[in-house]
Amino acid sequence: MHNRNYIIKTISAVMMLVGLAMLLPAGVSLYYGEESSVRAFAVCALPMAVVGFAMQKYIPESGRALRMRDGLLIGALSWLLMSALGCLPFTIEGCIPGFADAFFETSSGFSTTGASILTDIESLPKGMLLWRSLTHWLGGMGILVLTIALFPMLGIGGQRVMRAETTGPTMDKTNFTLRESASSLYKIYTLFTVAEIALLMAGGMSLYDAAIHSFGTVGTGGFSNYSASVAQFGSVYIELVIVVFMLACGVNFGIYHRVIFGRKLSALRDPELKTYLSIVAVSTLFIAGCLYLNGLTSPGEGLRQSVFQVSSVITTTGYATADFALWPLPARIVLFMLMIIGSCASSTGGGIKVIRLIFAWKVMRRGVRRRLHPDSVEPIKLGGRSVSEEAVSSTVTFLFLYIVTAAVGIFLLSFENTDFETCISSVIACLSNIGPGFGLVGPMGNYAFYSDAAKIVLALIMIAGRIELYAILLPLSPRFWNPAR
Amino acid sequence: MHNRNYIIKTISAVMMLVGLAMLLPAGVSLYYGEESSVRAFAVCALPMAVVGFAMQKYIPESGRALRMRDGLLIGALSWLLMSALGCLPFTIEGCIPGFADAFFETSSGFSTTGASILTDIESLPKGMLLWRSLTHWLGGMGILVLTIALFPMLGIGGQRVMRAETTGPTMDKTNFTLRESASSLYKIYTLFTVAEIALLMAGGMSLYDAAIHSFGTVGTGGFSNYSASVAQFGSVYIELVIVVFMLACGVNFGIYHRVIFGRKLSALRDPELKTYLSIVAVSTLFIAGCLYLNGLTSPGEGLRQSVFQVSSVITTTGYATADFALWPLPARIVLFMLMIIGSCASSTGGGIKVIRLIFAWKVMRRGVRRRLHPDSVEPIKLGGRSVSEEAVSSTVTFLFLYIVTAAVGIFLLSFENTDFETCISSVIACLSNIGPGFGLVGPMGNYAFYSDAAKIVLALIMIAGRIELYAILLPLSPRFWNPAR
Repeated sequence: MHNRNYIIKTISAVMMLVGLAMLLPAGVSLYYGEESSVRAFAVCALPMAVVGFAMQKYIPESGRALRMRDGLLIGALSWLLMSALGCLPFTIEGCIPGFADAFFETSSGFSTTGASILTDIESLPKGMLLWRSLTHWLGGMGILVLTIALFPMLGIGGQRVMRAETTGPTMDKTNFTLRESASSLYKIYTLFTVAEIALLMAGGMSLYDAAIHSFGTVGTGGFSNYSASVAQFGSVYIELVIVVFMLACGVNFGIYHRVIFGRKLSALRDPELKTYLSIVAVSTLFIAGCLYLNGLTSPGEGLRQSVFQVSSVITTTGYATADFALWPLPARIVLFMLMIIGSCASSTGGGIKVIRLIFAWKVMRRGVRRRLHPDSVEPIKLGGRSVSEEAVSSTVTFLFLYIVTAAVGIFLLSFENTDFETCISSVIACLSNIGPGFGLVGPMGNYAFYSDAAKIVLALIMIAGRIELYAILLPLSPRFWNPAR
Repeated sequence: MHNRNYIIKTISAVMMLVGLAMLLPAGVSLYYGEESSVRAFAVCALPMAVVGFAMQKYIPESGRALRMRDGLLIGALSWLLMSALGCLPFTIEGCIPGFADAFFETSSGFSTTGASILTDIESLPKGMLLWRSLTHWLGGMGILVLTIALFPMLGIGGQRVMRAETTGPTMDKTNFTLRESASSLYKIYTLFTVAEIALLMAGGMSLYDAAIHSFGTVGTGGFSNYSASVAQFGSVYIELVIVVFMLACGVNFGIYHRVIFGRKLSALRDPELKTYLSIVAVSTLFIAGCLYLNGLTSPGEGLRQSVFQVSSVITTTGYATADFALWPLPARIVLFMLMIIGSCASSTGGGIKVIRLIFAWKVMRRGVRRRLHPDSVEPIKLGGRSVSEEAVSSTVTFLFLYIVTAAVGIFLLSFENTDFETCISSVIACLSNIGPGFGLVGPMGNYAFYSDAAKIVLALIMIAGRIELYAILLPLSPRFWNPAR
């Protein structure tokens, strides 16, 4: 049986937290004298905080053991609820009047995607823009919760969930308890945020701009308060700071945990990290060369544009300093592949994750060897250690889920009758939680032209991508509907 | 150690057969008084037949047991050699002067792809066009050899090869020996060809046109001797005949074998066949509706165009009666997915194959269930019988190989700087052995504009797709280079 009470209690806690979080942008709106925004935040925040608190407190615990499916359900419902409630200030204030638009924008925020339907970002109240970016930060924190803390807290085999199901298999076992690990990850996440804000302010940004772009970076989200995104600042220093933090937040946070709290520098010799950085380096050089040889930039400017866009796309952040939708096809194809690859497991980034692709490559090579030498039985190894068949099966399942979800999304979105490139890249950009794609949804475009139905579909795809797809198939399991079994 | 002698003997036999096969178009050229063509065929055919015969006869057998890798090597070398030698008449006669062009066209023929670099098909000598189409027929026959006869003949575990490696797992065990099975399949293949020629002639086609289009249909190739493809005839009857034979040749030939020679009508209750026909039916209705609702056709004309294009694409034939590259996006996306899906296993068609996608779907569902209910262990079943883990592993390996090959191909082709749709659909249309794609390579376009390098890459992709990809990774196996192990 589903542990209904526990699920409701957790969801209530999420509701309470979203309500409380609105107090920050409410304060900003108060400071800037945006009265209608203050009212909108108050109308949403207070009932959410109070009802959430009450439900969380007074619903009795049922005491039953929780199972995986409960955890997945909590993940799916949390992101849906955060998006549905979090979008209310936009509609109430009136800056994003339509529900589909507001839901899209907020799903995009909490899923750390960064796709936007806003055509005139600068016209929004400052409090609203801060809330929009804060959803990235909360979403990034949320995915760390889901990966590290929530599942073990629920007592449903945290290690297994953490290692194989939610964000890939490499949040290494350490000598710490999981709760310690989780709390250390929040510290690292907060530390990154504060450090980036300070460094951006040192480059001349206002606190407000620095906070917005730091939330967007560490959550690997990508919302900016400028239509021109990071190109607005035209500063190599600022771009460099953002590149470093984007790349840093696409790394498995377990590595920081081990290095900082465990003082194990050996954690840096992680095969996934090595592959991830190699992909970034090779792609950067390739695209810089491509821009230079096509006569679009000088070598230096090419490197500057290339490293920013490559870091932004592979970490699934989505900030831009150049309109890569207009780049030559080889550069676009490489970026498109980076969109699918995504960041490292247990990071705040999205996509398939580098580690899963390493596994898939090894599974493929083993499969070919098995055909050639039917007598050979070799376990798959990574960094000298054998990988469990459980992790292999989990990887294969995830990849198939990714393909099926993308195919369904592309089919549904094709009814919008845009073009092949826009249609496919919209779905991948949302599924991998990036934001901008190519064609009409390039970095200088937006998702405003889509119908309400398409916006809802894309919002659900973003959420599905964020909670790593498993929850999608919950309803396909017969036992889901017959929980007594 | 590689069984070098056996490999050379087999390749020699292939060379001899290609030489002998040229006698048919040589005769046609003689009949039509195309002297330069007769000379070109003679110059190629005689040395190939003689040298091939001599090598085949006088190289001693080594007598060592052959292994899987030898079989794969024979497959890869045969298709490369057939394409490299089969293109010589075109270059010698001068109707396709460039080697890259001629190699592309001939690889496209033997791999039953049907992609063309010809911009003015009608200007070619009749003998040359017949040879071009005959390569489809030989290629289709060849893939049946590879699937059914060659591997078991080599004594390398034919059943396993046939069931899992080359064209998917459903050439069912029967009460016949494999050699009997193989010979019965050639009979069925020839029967189909003769029947189609007769039916097309009954619809008013000349013997020449009927032969060309029958070779293109039963081999699921798609070369026509008219630029307008099958639209040239403007006849519902002819379209219907071709639709029926395209669909029939996309079916597992093992089913015909059992029905015709085994008198087992129960073979028609094949899960793959059911899924295949359902996909055809649903896609046809969907696209017809899409054409009608977009005001492009009447309902009847929509059905007529839709069923032809759907059958042509899913069977990976590539004939056209409408320029589907101009259809609305939903119709194009559905056709694009059919291109990837492909036909049934052990047919003459290409693509991933329906049975592999059924397996992949079941693997995915089992994977999700395993995450939700870690205690459950369920074998994968198909039509009431358990599927071996060997077949599952083979399917997963193939799908990953398909994705990697497509990705490498798309990356390489992106240097041509066309557009996203043209680039991606060119690779898929070649990898799945279809022929026409979208954008510049649509049914009314062609591959002429690509550079020589791109043509060679695409030709190799066609051959890789035809021999089901496994051979690509042969060089990645350390033991391939150290055959003593």
